[in-house]
Amino acid sequence: MTRPIVFLTDYGLDDEFVGVCHGVITRIAPDARVIDLAHGIPPQDVLRGALVLAAAAPYMPEDAVYLAVVDPGVGGARGAVAVATEAGALLVGPDNGLLSLAWQELGGPIKAVEISAPDRMLERVSATFHGRDVFAPAAAHLANVADLNDLGPDVDLSSLQHVHVPAPGIADGELTAVVTGVDRFGNLELNARPDDLAEAALGDAGSLTLRHAGGTAGIRVARTFEDVPPGDPALIEGSSGYLAVVVNMGSAARRLGLSAGSDLALTR
Amino acid sequence: MTRPIVFLTDYGLDDEFVGVCHGVITRIAPDARVIDLAHGIPPQDVLRGALVLAAAAPYMPEDAVYLAVVDPGVGGARGAVAVATEAGALLVGPDNGLLSLAWQELGGPIKAVEISAPDRMLERVSATFHGRDVFAPAAAHLANVADLNDLGPDVDLSSLQHVHVPAPGIADGELTAVVTGVDRFGNLELNARPDDLAEAALGDAGSLTLRHAGGTAGIRVARTFEDVPPGDPALIEGSSGYLAVVVNMGSAARRLGLSAGSDLALTR
Amino acid sequence: MTRPIVFLTDYGLDDEFVGVCHGVITRIAPDARVIDLAHGIPPQDVLRGALVLAAAAPYMPEDAVYLAVVDPGVGGARGAVAVATEAGALLVGPDNGLLSLAWQELGGPIKAVEISAPDRMLERVSATFHGRDVFAPAAAHLANVADLNDLGPDVDLSSLQHVHVPAPGIADGELTAVVTGVDRFGNLELNARPDDLAEAALGDAGSLTLRHAGGTAGIRVARTFEDVPPGDPALIEGSSGYLAVVVNMGSAARRLGLSAGSDLALTR
Repeated sequence: MTRPIVFLTDYGLDDEFVGVCHGVITRIAPDARVIDLAHGIPPQDVLRGALVLAAAAPYMPEDAVYLAVVDPGVGGARGAVAVATEAGALLVGPDNGLLSLAWQELGGPIKAVEISAPDRMLERVSATFHGRDVFAPAAAHLANVADLNDLGPDVDLSSLQHVHVPAPGIADGELTAVVTGVDRFGNLELNARPDDLAEAALGDAGSLTLRHAGGTAGIRVARTFEDVPPGDPALIEGSSGYLAVVVNMGSAARRLGLSAGSDLALTR
Repeated sequence: MTRPIVFLTDYGLDDEFVGVCHGVITRIAPDARVIDLAHGIPPQDVLRGALVLAAAAPYMPEDAVYLAVVDPGVGGARGAVAVATEAGALLVGPDNGLLSLAWQELGGPIKAVEISAPDRMLERVSATFHGRDVFAPAAAHLANVADLNDLGPDVDLSSLQHVHVPAPGIADGELTAVVTGVDRFGNLELNARPDDLAEAALGDAGSLTLRHAGGTAGIRVARTFEDVPPGDPALIEGSSGYLAVVVNMGSAARRLGLSAGSDLALTR
Repeated sequence: MTRPIVFLTDYGLDDEFVGVCHGVITRIAPDARVIDLAHGIPPQDVLRGALVLAAAAPYMPEDAVYLAVVDPGVGGARGAVAVATEAGALLVGPDNGLLSLAWQELGGPIKAVEISAPDRMLERVSATFHGRDVFAPAAAHLANVADLNDLGPDVDLSSLQHVHVPAPGIADGELTAVVTGVDRFGNLELNARPDDLAEAALGDAGSLTLRHAGGTAGIRVARTFEDVPPGDPALIEGSSGYLAVVVNMGSAARRLGLSAGSDLALTR
């Protein structure tokens, strides 16, 4: 019995970083299945990594070991942690908030340890590639059903780092939001959910005005892409449960000139 | 015994869509091998997806379950189908023609069902991500050797959608064709085969004139890249069996200014 | 018992080439684990492929079959070889030097054969895709613990091709080097190691002057990214053991205008 590993990084797939970690995992846990969840997190974007990991968690195996590395502070003072969750899944990564939305999604953390046992990492630990030298070995040992205590001493749960997800602005008749990510199709994911739209008293609107730094646009509120004429922008509930600005058969990012981090406001 | 899954989409690998589908598959069929055939199909290019799937089929395991998603109409009226082929392989995807060239390659369809059984998809089906909610679960159940009838009611084979592959133009001494795809190396795949060249009475030519919207170029007819001086364009039989315009040690796309959809004519 | 396959190419992941090879492997060795080490080697850059393969070898399973394809001469006169190493790993690929740094890393070659047995490759061998038709089948048969002799006749070890790694220039107080690769983060890998810096009597410097075609810059010598103020360039030992020019929280490639092949000199 080995647990599956769910692997997320900002390493990209052009270089060998992901593949090298697969090699390290295979040496320690040759039978562990590895699910490459995403390696295209924008470089060093801890918040985006945390959002993607949490949104994916309900679709991953319940006994998964999450191995997540978006790590601007590699080699420095930030801790390396392994966290057990109420739901049973384990999480391995830097203690910089990257794991924090996922453990909330998984019922909350029930135990955390600092990864520090020399026999649970590679013999030589580089200053720049802890994915290979620290995190992949730890995750592989956990996939082999190692005890969390084998990795190192307990960490106080209250000391674990969290990411801050910017909240949408909700006023009567106006919802302000920020673009948290842009996918391959040019769809813009927002930091707001359908409930927020309803709370802003816009839940029944058939169309809205979208205001952003570059101008304004009328957008339809729709349930599916097919409800929107090709080329027109629309607001839909994206697959992650967040609102998304999309263009049927086109790119909302290009059409509206918006990108990750862009602010916008929705009114009637 | 589980069947391998051959997975093709236009999701790209920058986002988490492919990885989330892997998670869904693993929850249902933890032992199924998943072959990621291609996820870089140009967004919403159903024809290109169909061509790639069919060209790859002879190299895939004979008992494979193909899971293919290029789905501009997601959430709308197009059907979701699972198709059994004469050769034994199964195909799962939107009923928009994406699967149609592959089932021809695999001996033709012998049975098709509409994927509609609630217990064979995820509990909550979103309007925008049927790869995750409908198709991946269906393919995973089939990898577990579920009966096709468990997925939903029969679909009349004659009602299945097909893609239209544009035919090359064959005249005496002239072959007109269109670029159906460009690969990483800048090689241009055409919608014509060596037989078409022969039928246009050009099969014995050692070199040809290539005419396109941007000009004309002399190109050598060659068997391998090494038969062509570096930097020179040539016409070869590509690995898919279609003709390809290539440049040894260079990019034919850049050298000639051609891209997917470009028309061209070959004469002596 | 099957051996794991470590797979490296310059095919990229936008096209189906890698996925098609996975299909071929699965047909022959359905239980073999395949580690996708890297497929983003710059097109036809044999030296870069050789460097990446060798640097990764210590992290790969000891019984691995390496399947490596960066093959500008496909279809031409270069040989196709399988090589057994002292350390036990096997290597499969074109005889163009691509494998040569890895077999050195793995204790040296102890036997090599030419891949030529018709029943160990696909029935129809194309002129342009030997990864699919020759190398993947050979590697899959070896993963199935086939005998090397089944693939073809012995090749004299002294006839095997090697890549030439350009040596850094070491003078008293000056180290000249070339950028051998740029990763996703814009880090620049050099063809020099910390020992070379010491030999140039620069091993104790806390900061250096970097001179290149576009100008000069002061750079700190550091152990980790965190030792460097954000935005400043630094020289560190990269994860492969080579020196790297990096920018904390930024891209050294963009900041300094350097790319693969750029020459530079380091002095006090």
